[in-house]
Amino acid sequence: MNMTSLIEKKKRGEVLSKEEISFLIKGYTADEIPDYQVSAFLMAVWFNGMSLEETVDLTDAMRFSGDVIDLSAIKGIKVDKHSTGGVGDKTSMIIGPIAASVGVKVPKMSGRGLGFTGGTVDKLESIPGFRTEIDEDEFIDIVNRVGLAIIGQTKKVVPADKKIYALRDVTQTVDNISLIASSVMSKKLASGSDKIVLDVKNGDGAFMESLEEAVKLAELMVLIGKKAGKETIALITDMEEPLGHYIGNGLEVMESIMTLKGEGPEDLLDLSLSLSAYMVHLSDKNISYEEGRTICEDAVKSGKALSKMKEFIEAQGGNPKVIEDFSLLPTPAYDVEIEGPLEDGYVYSCHAKTIGIASQMSGAGRITKEEDIDLSAGIILHKKTGDFCKKGEPFGVCYGNNLKKVQEAAKEAAKAFTLGPTAPSKKSVVLKVIK
Amino acid sequence: MNMTSLIEKKKRGEVLSKEEISFLIKGYTADEIPDYQVSAFLMAVWFNGMSLEETVDLTDAMRFSGDVIDLSAIKGIKVDKHSTGGVGDKTSMIIGPIAASVGVKVPKMSGRGLGFTGGTVDKLESIPGFRTEIDEDEFIDIVNRVGLAIIGQTKKVVPADKKIYALRDVTQTVDNISLIASSVMSKKLASGSDKIVLDVKNGDGAFMESLEEAVKLAELMVLIGKKAGKETIALITDMEEPLGHYIGNGLEVMESIMTLKGEGPEDLLDLSLSLSAYMVHLSDKNISYEEGRTICEDAVKSGKALSKMKEFIEAQGGNPKVIEDFSLLPTPAYDVEIEGPLEDGYVYSCHAKTIGIASQMSGAGRITKEEDIDLSAGIILHKKTGDFCKKGEPFGVCYGNNLKKVQEAAKEAAKAFTLGPTAPSKKSVVLKVIK
Repeated sequence: MNMTSLIEKKKRGEVLSKEEISFLIKGYTADEIPDYQVSAFLMAVWFNGMSLEETVDLTDAMRFSGDVIDLSAIKGIKVDKHSTGGVGDKTSMIIGPIAASVGVKVPKMSGRGLGFTGGTVDKLESIPGFRTEIDEDEFIDIVNRVGLAIIGQTKKVVPADKKIYALRDVTQTVDNISLIASSVMSKKLASGSDKIVLDVKNGDGAFMESLEEAVKLAELMVLIGKKAGKETIALITDMEEPLGHYIGNGLEVMESIMTLKGEGPEDLLDLSLSLSAYMVHLSDKNISYEEGRTICEDAVKSGKALSKMKEFIEAQGGNPKVIEDFSLLPTPAYDVEIEGPLEDGYVYSCHAKTIGIASQMSGAGRITKEEDIDLSAGIILHKKTGDFCKKGEPFGVCYGNNLKKVQEAAKEAAKAFTLGPTAPSKKSVVLKVIK
Repeated sequence: MNMTSLIEKKKRGEVLSKEEISFLIKGYTADEIPDYQVSAFLMAVWFNGMSLEETVDLTDAMRFSGDVIDLSAIKGIKVDKHSTGGVGDKTSMIIGPIAASVGVKVPKMSGRGLGFTGGTVDKLESIPGFRTEIDEDEFIDIVNRVGLAIIGQTKKVVPADKKIYALRDVTQTVDNISLIASSVMSKKLASGSDKIVLDVKNGDGAFMESLEEAVKLAELMVLIGKKAGKETIALITDMEEPLGHYIGNGLEVMESIMTLKGEGPEDLLDLSLSLSAYMVHLSDKNISYEEGRTICEDAVKSGKALSKMKEFIEAQGGNPKVIEDFSLLPTPAYDVEIEGPLEDGYVYSCHAKTIGIASQMSGAGRITKEEDIDLSAGIILHKKTGDFCKKGEPFGVCYGNNLKKVQEAAKEAAKAFTLGPTAPSKKSVVLKVIK
């Protein structure tokens, strides 16, 4: 077997065997197959696609390319959640406490990565003292005691994905359904949970811009999960506009806490309850989704979820007073208003991707791996789709420690808005559920 | 401008501008763009192709990626010939002396490369004393004096092609018409001749397996030549079976000399006369192809071409006695017969590629760049298509200095033959001429 023959097969649209895919992944992980052959292969995959069987085999080969986490020492049903990534997506910090407060075990490994803001672990690190580099034993111990822990993904889990993703990123081969599905699912399957809830973002701010594509990706990932014996449910959710009003790192911690207090925005609360209700349902099939939703709503209303958040922060070394005192979070040196409209009107759209780019420009997201994140930076939106906005009234405010960056971000963010004479009809956040 | 956006454009089937193609070639030649991005780009080109304009721009960017040879010090019309490569193709060593003996200037730079046998310079090096590493001044001087010189291509000419070709070779992106055409023509245009005759091989032993593809490639290269102001004629020639009966390095020198003596095989002589007649025609448009052909036939019959071969060998330091005494060429230690048929019959086909692979196995061709060639190794075919072959009569003989290799080569070569009860109709070697 050699790599040129695998490239040739894929180029001709043929189907690779399990052995061939395993050869590729093992060889690339071990640095025995060079980048330039894998990138040619990935481009051939982009054009000719992969069959379901190939995608399952690819996921499997990647899953076992490094350490596979054994969470059997955690009592109870362990449910993981993964989002394909969007702007203002802070649900992990909300659904974790909700689900854990009603008995689900949530052992979550999360990435940092490049993007509009940091990853969940970057966001959590804006809480003073919060540790995300925790070894496996302590991780298991915290989940057993608290029900929830969120740590950074170790480099030893799915090393194949790290190499392949970095390569896809610079060779324009990110946007392929089989490559996305195998990347997500290999990590989820290697992370050791029993069940998986996926949040597949749809719309301009997401990988999958059309609903049809998002549904295909969701169906593929659910199938991969099932074939690996881990029940998986996927929600297709709207990412035309940012989720919630706060985008950034410390800013998203704030809005998460506000939501757990019952003071968060409607779209964010709705999605968080949907996701955590499915986690509850998956953890105990005697509980229907609807019953799970009631349980989760009660957990927020009663303050149980907020208490769990406090407990979780404390368990990972963070200062729990942050829940009452947001001034403990990183404070930006500068704030610049996002200039409002020239005429009165209703916000017709608030383009998620543009807000995401503005957030990154403010300093909230990394552009290169080496860059430091400004944990105080980001955006608070005063207006979102459907809101009335008076002439000159600012759409929101940009924050950060570098004035020039914040000013540029505010200019960019203003481009995200279009206005109309009437309010557009409200869309629900959850567009479809794939089981 | 950045490489990811160029990959994305080609992936989407868009057309790149002259500036974009120049950015790519300059950046890659200067090691500023990594292999893995170029290989992804090349695979996208394989799927989406390149427009005529893009191909012309690519050829141009490659042509000027390094030194461009100035041959203005050579008096007369300089005509170059290039073959896309086949099995037993030794025409350069025949047409060079023929054309030079009737007044055409033939300054030829030739590659070594991997393949079934060595390149023309490898073949010539089997002549004792023959030098192919000659500097530009001496090269020009020899062409002025003798009319013909054949030297190795310097690394400084079209360095972009060297990098890109090496990458294409290991990423299955060789078989694309725009990439083949730009590779060939950038080298020909940078080598400084005034006119170009191309020999585009067609058939199983060649890049272009279908006549339709070969015609397309030829038309494209002729157009590129014309756009660069260098008149180009392409012959599409048969490569279903090897050209001539001798395949190897020293062996091909032998058959070339035999052909110049008028003792060569019909197909090889016919093709050599066609190619040199077009060279004569291009060098002086008052001479028609038909007149050129008569002139070239006379040059062989009169011994003028053979004398020119002698003069040429001497000018490049070789021992001219080789013309009379083939024992001066490398002598193989072993010869193994290629086992003949189980029943009497006519050779129906003699599969060029299989003979080529057998030749390589015998030691006549490089598999990796580092490998040494066995200049004595190769094959002499006793039978070719149309020949009657008695039961058990050998198809030919394999030669070389490594017995095991020669035995394996003989086994492989036997697979090339199919037999039938009647002789198939003769095909002509020149299938089509594209002007």
